[in-house]
Amino acid sequence: MLTNDQLSQWDRENFLHPSTAFGQHARGESANRIVKTGSGVFIEDRDGNRFLDAFAGLYCVNVGYGRTEIAEAISRQAHELSYYHAYVGHGTEASITLAKMVADRAPAHMNKVYFGLGGSDANETNVKLVWYIQNVLGRPEKRKIISRWRGYHGSGLITGSLTGLTPFHNKFGLPLSEVVHTEAPYYFRRPRKDMSEAEFTAHCAAELEALIEREGADTIGAFIGEPILGTGGIVPPPAGYWDAIQAILKKHDILLIADEVVTGFGRLGTMMGSTHYGITPDIITIAKGLTSAYAPLSGSIVSDDLFKVLEEGTDKFGPFGHGWTYSAHPIGAAAGVANLKLVDDLGLVQNARDTGAYFQQALKTALGSHRFVGDVRGEGLMAAIELQRDPATGADFDAADKVTAQVVGEMAKRHVIARAMPQGEIIGFAPPLCITPAEIDQVVDATVDALNAVTGAL
Amino acid sequence: MLTNDQLSQWDRENFLHPSTAFGQHARGESANRIVKTGSGVFIEDRDGNRFLDAFAGLYCVNVGYGRTEIAEAISRQAHELSYYHAYVGHGTEASITLAKMVADRAPAHMNKVYFGLGGSDANETNVKLVWYIQNVLGRPEKRKIISRWRGYHGSGLITGSLTGLTPFHNKFGLPLSEVVHTEAPYYFRRPRKDMSEAEFTAHCAAELEALIEREGADTIGAFIGEPILGTGGIVPPPAGYWDAIQAILKKHDILLIADEVVTGFGRLGTMMGSTHYGITPDIITIAKGLTSAYAPLSGSIVSDDLFKVLEEGTDKFGPFGHGWTYSAHPIGAAAGVANLKLVDDLGLVQNARDTGAYFQQALKTALGSHRFVGDVRGEGLMAAIELQRDPATGADFDAADKVTAQVVGEMAKRHVIARAMPQGEIIGFAPPLCITPAEIDQVVDATVDALNAVTGAL
Repeated sequence: MLTNDQLSQWDRENFLHPSTAFGQHARGESANRIVKTGSGVFIEDRDGNRFLDAFAGLYCVNVGYGRTEIAEAISRQAHELSYYHAYVGHGTEASITLAKMVADRAPAHMNKVYFGLGGSDANETNVKLVWYIQNVLGRPEKRKIISRWRGYHGSGLITGSLTGLTPFHNKFGLPLSEVVHTEAPYYFRRPRKDMSEAEFTAHCAAELEALIEREGADTIGAFIGEPILGTGGIVPPPAGYWDAIQAILKKHDILLIADEVVTGFGRLGTMMGSTHYGITPDIITIAKGLTSAYAPLSGSIVSDDLFKVLEEGTDKFGPFGHGWTYSAHPIGAAAGVANLKLVDDLGLVQNARDTGAYFQQALKTALGSHRFVGDVRGEGLMAAIELQRDPATGADFDAADKVTAQVVGEMAKRHVIARAMPQGEIIGFAPPLCITPAEIDQVVDATVDALNAVTGAL
Repeated sequence: MLTNDQLSQWDRENFLHPSTAFGQHARGESANRIVKTGSGVFIEDRDGNRFLDAFAGLYCVNVGYGRTEIAEAISRQAHELSYYHAYVGHGTEASITLAKMVADRAPAHMNKVYFGLGGSDANETNVKLVWYIQNVLGRPEKRKIISRWRGYHGSGLITGSLTGLTPFHNKFGLPLSEVVHTEAPYYFRRPRKDMSEAEFTAHCAAELEALIEREGADTIGAFIGEPILGTGGIVPPPAGYWDAIQAILKKHDILLIADEVVTGFGRLGTMMGSTHYGITPDIITIAKGLTSAYAPLSGSIVSDDLFKVLEEGTDKFGPFGHGWTYSAHPIGAAAGVANLKLVDDLGLVQNARDTGAYFQQALKTALGSHRFVGDVRGEGLMAAIELQRDPATGADFDAADKVTAQVVGEMAKRHVIARAMPQGEIIGFAPPLCITPAEIDQVVDATVDALNAVTGAL
């Protein structure tokens, strides 16, 4: 039972929450939860309810809650200088130091960082970079961006178009025509069950080739993809996928944007997800893990080759006409510096690898042969289970039954937060990278109990 | 002379600054300035250079630098809870309190607030709101957004398209086709010098009517405008402008978005710029003054009428498919609560009115008849002077002479920061709202001296 008082009333009357049924919220028909504090993998609401947050906010609080090292860094920066802009060569010690720290953690051929605020606006910047670069190269018509169905790249107008999920398109008139979609690398949902991973990879590659043929390679500026699909269902790629895709992009002179908003800075057990899968991107999108969400900050890491084109462009045409007032905000930069140091000091990349392996195994052991579980999958500290009415025949649940939402609701009663992914019957996990095996056990136990509580009645 | 050391080297090697000539910066051909601290209207770089910042960062540090009340609020929030998301009805005491405080300061018919990060992403949200609302109302084809030439609404893909300034379009292939532009309400640049303000207003209205006729009212979803043009040149509207525009929009059932990123929370000497000019918007964009830039936060304030449509839509179609991970970030919300309280406690809206009037008069007196000044204009604590080679004949300077950039450079030598606006020979002023008449005198004196130093040589 949550407190119903003045604060709750203002919440109903004045606050439009993201991804919320506005009407139900305003009329008090759905719960509102006011979060008060957190520590490690736990958060606590103002009514004293404590939860193990197995989704790390929105897979972003990588170092865990309540880290005083970051809070102190934010506090020091706020007292010294909360804000000055970064336009026309202005910086702060924190923003410059962070640029260097990011470059040190990026693939060796990438050394320039543009800072934004969140993943969506970083992908806006990336599309602008692509359009500008293709213009400077004298081929302005090379402009369309290829994204994958089930990719997630933001919820703006172009970035929501890049996102290949219907809840972000329907009723908004998206996607816009600048974006075209290709096959999701989603082996569990492959066209024929008898396909091997290698065959499915070849299928995805053929679909991409056919799309490029159809649209014309000279109309396509870039391809964007997450190393592992995130909000689209937490789906690792089939074997050989990234090699096959990169060969096609190279052949058609199409730039590659690796969206590492979720995977950057350790989640897969490697500093960057690109390294994990042998991806050599032209641009990398970073956000969440950059600051562990302690303050808003995102970034676009640009390859040395692309930088040469940017240099040529700005030498010819003057300053790059792009910027957010809060690009490289000092508070975000200070949080980023303290956060990346903490990731190193606590050995969190290694922990994501080790405890991640423990997590993947524990989920498979506990749920791999559950009668309503079609798939258990993941990599590092990202995992998902996909529910089906009958895994043997591949029959899905009826979406109207909201089975996943019920399971996640039952998990919350057991004080564990997981996420009902927005499209499909998929329960997602992405805990803070500091999680311990004992806490993993608590997550897995709550999942099994909740699933049985819901499906026992089916 | 700025320090050239390890930090400076990292800045050259790794940091892509907004609105910067990347090549020159990387090669060390342009200055990089590392800002260290600030107090009141002053900032200080790490070499001990102190400047009166007469542009308040990017017209955003409204309460001035170094306010410990806000730094303390940020620090407390960082220690208690740096982050939890606001999705699906989650909130914090700070974000809910701020929603209520914003609603209290908005026009009476507007009571719902969606929080974002910066002005650009808030305008993304606004376009999504318009497209969704027109869809729910059963007219999805009512979708184009009308903006004005010289409007500034961000530098993303759609928001940069809304922006009516060529440096934000050229080489990016913008504007996109979803945006159409109409006449700038820029009396100084009226088509014929013998037009009265009333005649020019009628001309702007006729241009808008003609555009709507040409495009078809049933294809147009909304009109967006700043109460007073900001980055496009700091231009107050001609007399009667907003009445005339609103009558046309109403007639054609076109929504009105007032972009108050610059004017919101006091800059014109009224809490909101809409009130100042008798504008009754459907949506208001807020950012800068919401937190005085101490932490990133923006917002979209939605009218009660539009909320009814959103309610109907989410009742029918489920949760609104839109959100940023950092929407309503706790640090930004805590900064916002402390900032708006400080605006009240220090009487800054009143000071913007009083000291603003003093500023406008002082600029006119000092520069109104300068031989190279074509126009002195402004409202509250926003002002601009527009330079011309010969105001009597209306002859402009050659852009290649970079006269404005030179003047602003000379002002910096006199320890005063003003802004060379991005299009035209226009020097912009928008100091913190706490500025005193004595500090205004310092700004005006530096401007006159710098202008004479540059133009004495012409």
